[in-house]
Amino acid sequence: MALIARGTEEILKRDELEKRLAGGKPLRIKAGFDPTAPDLHLGHTVLLNKMRQFQDLGHQVIFLIGDFTGMIGDPTGKNATRKPLTREDVLANAETYAEQVYKVLDRTKTELRFNSEWFGTMTAADMIKLAGQHTVARMLERDDFAKRYAAQQSIAIHEFLYPLVQGYDSVALKCDVELGGTDQKFNLLMGRGLQEAAGLPPQVVITLPLLEGLDGANKMSKSLGNYIGINEPAKDIFGKTMSVSDDLMWRWFELLSFKKSLAELADMRRAVEAGEANPRDFKLELAYELTARFHGAGAADAVLGAWHAKRDGALPEDIREFHIRVPQEGLRLAAALRETALAASGAEASRKAKERAVRVDGVVVEDPSHLLPPGTTYLLQLGKRGFARINLAEESTP
Amino acid sequence: MALIARGTEEILKRDELEKRLAGGKPLRIKAGFDPTAPDLHLGHTVLLNKMRQFQDLGHQVIFLIGDFTGMIGDPTGKNATRKPLTREDVLANAETYAEQVYKVLDRTKTELRFNSEWFGTMTAADMIKLAGQHTVARMLERDDFAKRYAAQQSIAIHEFLYPLVQGYDSVALKCDVELGGTDQKFNLLMGRGLQEAAGLPPQVVITLPLLEGLDGANKMSKSLGNYIGINEPAKDIFGKTMSVSDDLMWRWFELLSFKKSLAELADMRRAVEAGEANPRDFKLELAYELTARFHGAGAADAVLGAWHAKRDGALPEDIREFHIRVPQEGLRLAAALRETALAASGAEASRKAKERAVRVDGVVVEDPSHLLPPGTTYLLQLGKRGFARINLAEESTP
Repeated sequence: MALIARGTEEILKRDELEKRLAGGKPLRIKAGFDPTAPDLHLGHTVLLNKMRQFQDLGHQVIFLIGDFTGMIGDPTGKNATRKPLTREDVLANAETYAEQVYKVLDRTKTELRFNSEWFGTMTAADMIKLAGQHTVARMLERDDFAKRYAAQQSIAIHEFLYPLVQGYDSVALKCDVELGGTDQKFNLLMGRGLQEAAGLPPQVVITLPLLEGLDGANKMSKSLGNYIGINEPAKDIFGKTMSVSDDLMWRWFELLSFKKSLAELADMRRAVEAGEANPRDFKLELAYELTARFHGAGAADAVLGAWHAKRDGALPEDIREFHIRVPQEGLRLAAALRETALAASGAEASRKAKERAVRVDGVVVEDPSHLLPPGTTYLLQLGKRGFARINLAEESTP
Repeated sequence: MALIARGTEEILKRDELEKRLAGGKPLRIKAGFDPTAPDLHLGHTVLLNKMRQFQDLGHQVIFLIGDFTGMIGDPTGKNATRKPLTREDVLANAETYAEQVYKVLDRTKTELRFNSEWFGTMTAADMIKLAGQHTVARMLERDDFAKRYAAQQSIAIHEFLYPLVQGYDSVALKCDVELGGTDQKFNLLMGRGLQEAAGLPPQVVITLPLLEGLDGANKMSKSLGNYIGINEPAKDIFGKTMSVSDDLMWRWFELLSFKKSLAELADMRRAVEAGEANPRDFKLELAYELTARFHGAGAADAVLGAWHAKRDGALPEDIREFHIRVPQEGLRLAAALRETALAASGAEASRKAKERAVRVDGVVVEDPSHLLPPGTTYLLQLGKRGFARINLAEESTP
């Protein structure tokens, strides 16, 4: 329960959740996602992390793609950017989702569903019956509707149907818990009412905070540019994480880290405040964890190494760069050191490597026959002073 | 155009209607009816009369039964009286409608339609698209919604869909004109908007006033008891019409009579105001016309005759009543006069009848062998003074 509650905004209702957990049966945990082409950032992973925690606790997580309304598009025709999606679009987007979300979720334990499954066979009469389940006044209480109505901005009537559609998904899926951002609270509660009307026990609603972006002030969003995309290169995820304020770091730890418990975080914080620890060291741990999550430990090691190398002040400004064509399998480290004149000979290169005096992209490499594959640039370092960049391109086959 | 405009409340827009009429093609005229068991009163016939006028002018009248929403019932479940209708209910009710409305409409020229025809095959997605055609704010402008919202009475969301359903019927039927009561104006205009969105010319909307009931103050309605049902017995239609005030008579003439033009009505009214005519004589004409419309000329003659007989002050208070068992075919008039001792013999009875001195229910009957069928009571009259009531029951077959 402590793990489930970590980083949540609200649990409605907590006693109901405790009772269901005590039942011992795996709970059905739903989170809904937009079917438009996804490009997820760390903000989205707050929700994914919570789903993962439920998975780790043995519950059944449902990744629901709301394709039914996506295939309708914007019925007012005013929003040209919301063109109706085809079945093919939906499946392609689901594939894109999968590539991203399974960096956090356990693919084998995730139930992937599309709500067109039940709404696709619903009739106009069914939709009218669903609409009868709620009143205009209560719908106008939803924060954004209330504001738009007060400001005399138009609200198309179908917008009143969408929260009901989302709520009905919980009926169809017989969910025990629905997760969503705090901005989704109204819609999440809709599911409770519809489930009760359908004779089901009402789902527990858990809202998660919106993650603050790099600026530490606004919520992370594409349009504000204060985000870290989960498909960004390792060095960007690492570097951007290192750029956040110490305050924000604690928040990100709470919402994004699986490695540190809340108790550990409290200890770390106390240590920093007492001047016993450098917050930068903790930030490195967070940056490393996030980079490893999305690119694996190897890549995270590399960027951490490069960071250390750079921090040691060892990186001069005028590093020479070499362009070399190599066979497809790549270039051996000893050869690279010789080609860039960091070592006078292959023998010297091998000796230095074995002495742990050689780094590639900041990471110590002891094996002189280590292969550097073509297609990228490497930062070679020998000792404290010797630097070179070597760009390897594949020889064109004759 | 003058005939079409007679008794209407509003024509939106008149110039559009004139243009379409000038086109020379028969127009498609729609009026929608509730699919619940109908029991029509004179108030409903204001609309039917206008439909009939369009028929007489050669236009195509569509009698639309809104069975789609009727088969849904009340989706909130709050209104137990609005149970969902079955297909069989709808067809039975349509039959009941037919019995009543074809007393006014020409059956052979009426297109009877059910909107389940097009809504029955619509999907939930279609309904969402339809809902996108209108805004919450504009829907809340509808008079009854505005009042209920202001009074914090709940409006279920499906109620916002029903005007759109009605409007879409006009799209499906490609209507040129829609008729309805003034209280329907908002819904009728809905059709215009949806037709335009569908690339059709918007229908002309004609609203008809709500007929004042017998009390001359409130609109005619079942619940107020101030109505004349079109299935009421001839003598009740006649008698209730005779009971209305002179003021209301002019209004009823305008909205209910086919016999008097507006010019004639103006003349009649002038004559009454100048003291040259008795308004009661005109009221008799109206009562006769309405009785004849729903029960035929024969029945209207009879009640008019009875009315005259009674008015002549000839009806004493102590008329003797006879109960007689007769064969299935009935009792001949001469025999009835003898049995009731109004005539001393069959010969006298025959002679008096031939002298036009005998009335049955106020109507002169010259044929002494006229048969009075069993199952009812007749008022027999001979000369000015002789009265008897004779109740005829069929002999039980041995």
